[in-house]
Amino acid sequence: MELDEDSPSDWDEDDELLDVSSFGVAKWQRNERNDSRNDGSSTSRRRRDVFHDILSMDSSSQYDDFHTIDWVRDIQKYRNQRKDVLKAKKDSRKALIYSYLYRGAGWLVISLVGLATGFCAGIIDIGASWMSDIKLGICVNAFWLNQEECCWVQNNTAFGEEGCSEWYTWSEVFGHSTIDAGSYILNYIFFVMLSVIMAFLAVIFVRAFAPYACGSGIPEIKTILSGFIIRGYFGAWTLVIKSITMVLAVASGLSLGKEGPLVHVACCCGNLFAYLFPKYHQNEAKKREILSAASAAGVSVAFGAPIGGVLFSLEEVSYYFPLKTLWRSFFCALVAASVLRWINPFGTDHLVMFYVEYNTPWSFYELVPFSVLGILGGLYGVLFIKLNLWWCNYRKSSNLKRHPVLEVVVLALITAIISYPNPYTRQSSSRLIATLFKECGPEDDIDLCDYKRNFTRVDQSIYPTAEAGPGVTNALWQLSLALVVKAALTVFTFGIKVPAGLFIPSIAVGAIAGRIAGVVMEQVAFNNPSWFDSCSATGKCVTAGLYAMVGAAACLGGVTRMTVSLVVIMFELTGGLVYIVPLMVAVVISKWVGDAFTKGGIYDGHIELNDYPYLDSKREFIHNTLAADVMRPRRGSPELTTFTQDNMTVEDIEMLVSETTFNAFPVVVSKESKRLVGLVYRKELVQALKKSRNKYNAVSQSKVCFTNEMPLHPSPDSPSPINLLYIVDQSPFQVTDQTPANTVVEIFSKLGLRTCLVTQNGTLHGIITKKDVLGHIGALESIHPESMLFQ
Amino acid sequence: MELDEDSPSDWDEDDELLDVSSFGVAKWQRNERNDSRNDGSSTSRRRRDVFHDILSMDSSSQYDDFHTIDWVRDIQKYRNQRKDVLKAKKDSRKALIYSYLYRGAGWLVISLVGLATGFCAGIIDIGASWMSDIKLGICVNAFWLNQEECCWVQNNTAFGEEGCSEWYTWSEVFGHSTIDAGSYILNYIFFVMLSVIMAFLAVIFVRAFAPYACGSGIPEIKTILSGFIIRGYFGAWTLVIKSITMVLAVASGLSLGKEGPLVHVACCCGNLFAYLFPKYHQNEAKKREILSAASAAGVSVAFGAPIGGVLFSLEEVSYYFPLKTLWRSFFCALVAASVLRWINPFGTDHLVMFYVEYNTPWSFYELVPFSVLGILGGLYGVLFIKLNLWWCNYRKSSNLKRHPVLEVVVLALITAIISYPNPYTRQSSSRLIATLFKECGPEDDIDLCDYKRNFTRVDQSIYPTAEAGPGVTNALWQLSLALVVKAALTVFTFGIKVPAGLFIPSIAVGAIAGRIAGVVMEQVAFNNPSWFDSCSATGKCVTAGLYAMVGAAACLGGVTRMTVSLVVIMFELTGGLVYIVPLMVAVVISKWVGDAFTKGGIYDGHIELNDYPYLDSKREFIHNTLAADVMRPRRGSPELTTFTQDNMTVEDIEMLVSETTFNAFPVVVSKESKRLVGLVYRKELVQALKKSRNKYNAVSQSKVCFTNEMPLHPSPDSPSPINLLYIVDQSPFQVTDQTPANTVVEIFSKLGLRTCLVTQNGTLHGIITKKDVLGHIGALESIHPESMLFQ
Repeated sequence: MELDEDSPSDWDEDDELLDVSSFGVAKWQRNERNDSRNDGSSTSRRRRDVFHDILSMDSSSQYDDFHTIDWVRDIQKYRNQRKDVLKAKKDSRKALIYSYLYRGAGWLVISLVGLATGFCAGIIDIGASWMSDIKLGICVNAFWLNQEECCWVQNNTAFGEEGCSEWYTWSEVFGHSTIDAGSYILNYIFFVMLSVIMAFLAVIFVRAFAPYACGSGIPEIKTILSGFIIRGYFGAWTLVIKSITMVLAVASGLSLGKEGPLVHVACCCGNLFAYLFPKYHQNEAKKREILSAASAAGVSVAFGAPIGGVLFSLEEVSYYFPLKTLWRSFFCALVAASVLRWINPFGTDHLVMFYVEYNTPWSFYELVPFSVLGILGGLYGVLFIKLNLWWCNYRKSSNLKRHPVLEVVVLALITAIISYPNPYTRQSSSRLIATLFKECGPEDDIDLCDYKRNFTRVDQSIYPTAEAGPGVTNALWQLSLALVVKAALTVFTFGIKVPAGLFIPSIAVGAIAGRIAGVVMEQVAFNNPSWFDSCSATGKCVTAGLYAMVGAAACLGGVTRMTVSLVVIMFELTGGLVYIVPLMVAVVISKWVGDAFTKGGIYDGHIELNDYPYLDSKREFIHNTLAADVMRPRRGSPELTTFTQDNMTVEDIEMLVSETTFNAFPVVVSKESKRLVGLVYRKELVQALKKSRNKYNAVSQSKVCFTNEMPLHPSPDSPSPINLLYIVDQSPFQVTDQTPANTVVEIFSKLGLRTCLVTQNGTLHGIITKKDVLGHIGALESIHPESMLFQ
Repeated sequence: MELDEDSPSDWDEDDELLDVSSFGVAKWQRNERNDSRNDGSSTSRRRRDVFHDILSMDSSSQYDDFHTIDWVRDIQKYRNQRKDVLKAKKDSRKALIYSYLYRGAGWLVISLVGLATGFCAGIIDIGASWMSDIKLGICVNAFWLNQEECCWVQNNTAFGEEGCSEWYTWSEVFGHSTIDAGSYILNYIFFVMLSVIMAFLAVIFVRAFAPYACGSGIPEIKTILSGFIIRGYFGAWTLVIKSITMVLAVASGLSLGKEGPLVHVACCCGNLFAYLFPKYHQNEAKKREILSAASAAGVSVAFGAPIGGVLFSLEEVSYYFPLKTLWRSFFCALVAASVLRWINPFGTDHLVMFYVEYNTPWSFYELVPFSVLGILGGLYGVLFIKLNLWWCNYRKSSNLKRHPVLEVVVLALITAIISYPNPYTRQSSSRLIATLFKECGPEDDIDLCDYKRNFTRVDQSIYPTAEAGPGVTNALWQLSLALVVKAALTVFTFGIKVPAGLFIPSIAVGAIAGRIAGVVMEQVAFNNPSWFDSCSATGKCVTAGLYAMVGAAACLGGVTRMTVSLVVIMFELTGGLVYIVPLMVAVVISKWVGDAFTKGGIYDGHIELNDYPYLDSKREFIHNTLAADVMRPRRGSPELTTFTQDNMTVEDIEMLVSETTFNAFPVVVSKESKRLVGLVYRKELVQALKKSRNKYNAVSQSKVCFTNEMPLHPSPDSPSPINLLYIVDQSPFQVTDQTPANTVVEIFSKLGLRTCLVTQNGTLHGIITKKDVLGHIGALESIHPESMLFQ
């Protein structure tokens, strides 16, 4: 059963794995709508009846849904197209203008994608911040303002936990002006009710309009960028629904973030604008260059970190990343960040709520607690990945998968009930992180900043370390509780059927742990100032906010196993090179600890969970297997199905095609010599045969040949032969059967191959598809789990 | 003449092209010394007598000098080695420790390289700054201090052009205490004399001890990292001599910088530490991972920009850059930067002299002058590249190449004579750039800062735009003169036989042009404040220093065609995200303008000039040629020299080997069928035959076979056959003759191949080497110069 890569029956399972089958008919409607919207294929169809399908489809769409693309052929197609365009430019003025448009299309698309991404991010930021606050109350005279803006308008900058005069909690709206048990309960009820309603709306919207809008999207983006086709995943409908439901999901207080989904939204923008230009729309490989840049823009607006975004795209998401893309990704990320800064969603001139700016020095000895945070972050990552995957597996195998709405509603209910009493879980995660990253100043009157300080010198920028008051102890208890709650809820939340990112919850968990460690260290330093060399200079020994930041980096590193991009993102969040060493130490240790227990981050885990055909180029395996072990047919299996170059009839070929499900058939000189001529693709073959029958009056007995020399007519009665050499790919990739499997994997991942033929002493022996490679790796991994090395 | 890739006669020309032949015997001595030092090959040898060579050489060195490496085989070799090490770790405790050492070697080497690079850079920075000042005078009581330090020690922070009391100009040392014509002339003479002496010493050292130490080294580093072998280029001797002569060359006042050479020094450190670990020392492909990281560290210390360094390595220098390298490069760059910060060579806590920190806003309309600077920068780049390449070509073809010392001395003399009268060319380029980047404050009493200002509000951080005084007009004239002088001298300087970087002169030229534009704009703004929206807010309309920075980026972009890395480096120099948009606009426009006139930057030009075998992965060509057009033998040439698998004798093979210069021979099943069995490499073949003759008593008539089945003895009298299957590479790369040449180029550059076989219908037709690919590209380029596209 060679060459059945991507055969429909195989990827049918995927439907379920993608977890969209449960949405029933809606999915296909959506798919068809998106098909016609994004890919221009006008015929809607189901994948089951493939032969009929291929016959009836238009020729414009090169790949079927859930198929793998062939990078080398696509890039070659693009080169030929470009050559034609450049050659034609001398012919007419119109062609000249077109050639300039053609060459400038990349920059144009990138600019548009950047603009759109920045714009979407701005709206989402404003919406999420307003909706999060609406759970607690409303701005009476200007309901469209969130709590902070409402109080700003009133010049009430120092609003405390109760808000300012214009901001009414729900109990106040309903007349309970005093703070008593009744009003507390009323607020509590409103909080829980609104949370559940938002979550319900989010999941209903996703379910009804765009099933692909659920989750963080990063595992799917990685898979798609590696060369897989999932139609509609970046559709306009997905964009709209994901943007709306993201706001609802974040506002509902569920333990999730909007950073991952923002990358998905950015990629949707990328896909939509790529649709405007045939250069990108018709070429899946070129389109992925735009998507790479878009994902950089997504991270850029999510964290206000353009350089970090580019590195994220390079390190984590992209597969095929030519240097041209680096430059364009950077441009795209920068445009998006500039638009977002212009929108200024938080009114702070910063792109994220938790931007901090301090540069108090740190002591060399503090690397010890930072390393401990790194170890803890790594362990947290391992635990989180294991538990989350266990829960997702349970969800897939149990009845739970049939009730996604109920699951979300129940989770939102539990989250809201647990969250409200604790002030650190009640506020939105972004605001919590901002609180934890910040240093305590004289204007902060929260428990966490209850230090016994003498604030006479208000102009001072660095506040000396002081003794903690009772409020700090109280805050530490609440933070510890929040840590447990957040960590537990995130395990169950990542994977539910609403847009759900993982960055913010991971950062929150890490920041809580780090801040607790920071406060403890601070008190140690206060009691033993001689241990810290920075104490003597400024009186400021330990920056508790820095510990929160290091903890956040460690946890996020443990969960996602990002490295450079994570450090750069955190560094762009602080705007100073001072803390790059602590961050790096924490991230590197967290990664080492994590890698010792589980291979790969949470995204790799979810890719594996969903059986996506993702060939990880970062993975190496150390077996002695050869191409002969990877190829089909296996030893002892029936021979490879091949065509001979000059003695088959139309009927023979049609029979072979309908009897098998292979996507490609090798053509050989003769059955005996098995010398390779080329490869014929099923889709093109079926079309060519149909055309021959309709246009050239070919009959079942017509000879088909794949050679330069037409055979002579055997007799005047026999039908004239047809030549199909023009559909033969005469440059298929070949390796010998003695090629090490490592090298085969490298060729597949570096060149982005779809199929490769295996020869021995010049004769064709077998064929390797991307799926065979993935299957081989999977089989070896399950036998020897230690044999896989992540680099 | 197929397969003559890297044959000695071919690369003999290279000797001259590398411009080391003129150094005569010294080169070979050096080469041998470095050979034994770096590569462990104990036998010194000349390349001319290759056959004898190969017979007598030890087997440890896999490649010859000036040969191309085979990435795929090297990586496969490494994988096998790693597998053995990991497998053995269960055997004994020693093996276990070794396996940990083996796995940790990468991080260890990287850390050491970072430390060494930071240390070297610190020493070079201190040395260059002291030696630059010694031309002007001396610190009487502490001769080891430079002017700035000398005055600091005396608490004379505000030293002007005449220096402080402790700093004696040479005329003062010799008793001329008054400032008159006599002392001026005395100082002038000392300046010129010392400049010439330093330049003379630099060129003599390079000539006598390490010819490879000349130039910037970046074209060679690019070539070596792409998989070429130049023995001794990263040797210990090169490191020492380059470090010393770099200081001398910079101090001599020649129009050159130390930034490029610092990358070379970092790579030398990388090579030396890689030598300590067999994992890297014995594997050229793995060694290049270390060199990639080292080059990042080099840029990191050159500009104090660790992230920029990593991106430079990724964008400009590296060829094979797995993601693992990204992370390690970052670490290496960070370690180097930390060490340099600890050394603190300038006493300012910053890693470069021209670090600036300001963030006054810029207006949207200023993008117009920034774009103009971008255009000018691009044009400057084009002009510079053309003139410099013309001059280098002239040097190569004229008698000038025989007198490198004289050339350097004369150039130093002219430079010194022209430079002294103008204060902006008299000071070192770094200091000039620092002056131009900086904003004028109340403490600056130089001409350029002669504004009619009211400095009562000294506490203010932003100084309002003011009317220019007569000093500014004077300074502008001097700067214009300096611009012309610097630009002209750099054309003749880049390429001389001392360490000579291009970054600093380019930045200086750009900064001068930018500063002039900035001052002009400033005066326009002062007279029309309503045109600039930022004027109303702070009174500060135009930041002249920002224009200098933008101009510098534009010029450097035009000359080198760097993009992301350049923007990131400039951004790290300023420490703020505010100016990233102006910088990006200037760089992108400069690149567009430059690319419209010349393809590729100055480094690509020098690679081409020197005919280095560099296969640029950024380059694409749009021809319809096929693999059949690239391969040897050409149509009509004699057939490919092949071995048959079972009917040749030892004598046959030895004759074929000695008659040809090919590096590899394909093995086929039979002359008739030409079905491919594998590839035999000359080096291994010669060794195997020698071993067979010596150990297994093979005689000339012995049959040699390359099969699994040994043939039967034809008769008892005939000698027993020998089987050499074990030296056959049974997994050579193959493409069909119909494969587009584009795809062939892509395979070669992405996989790092050395040779690839060409088949047609299963029979062997020809062979393609990296040199054939380069030759094909070169041939097409010379016929259709427009056909090459840089991306």
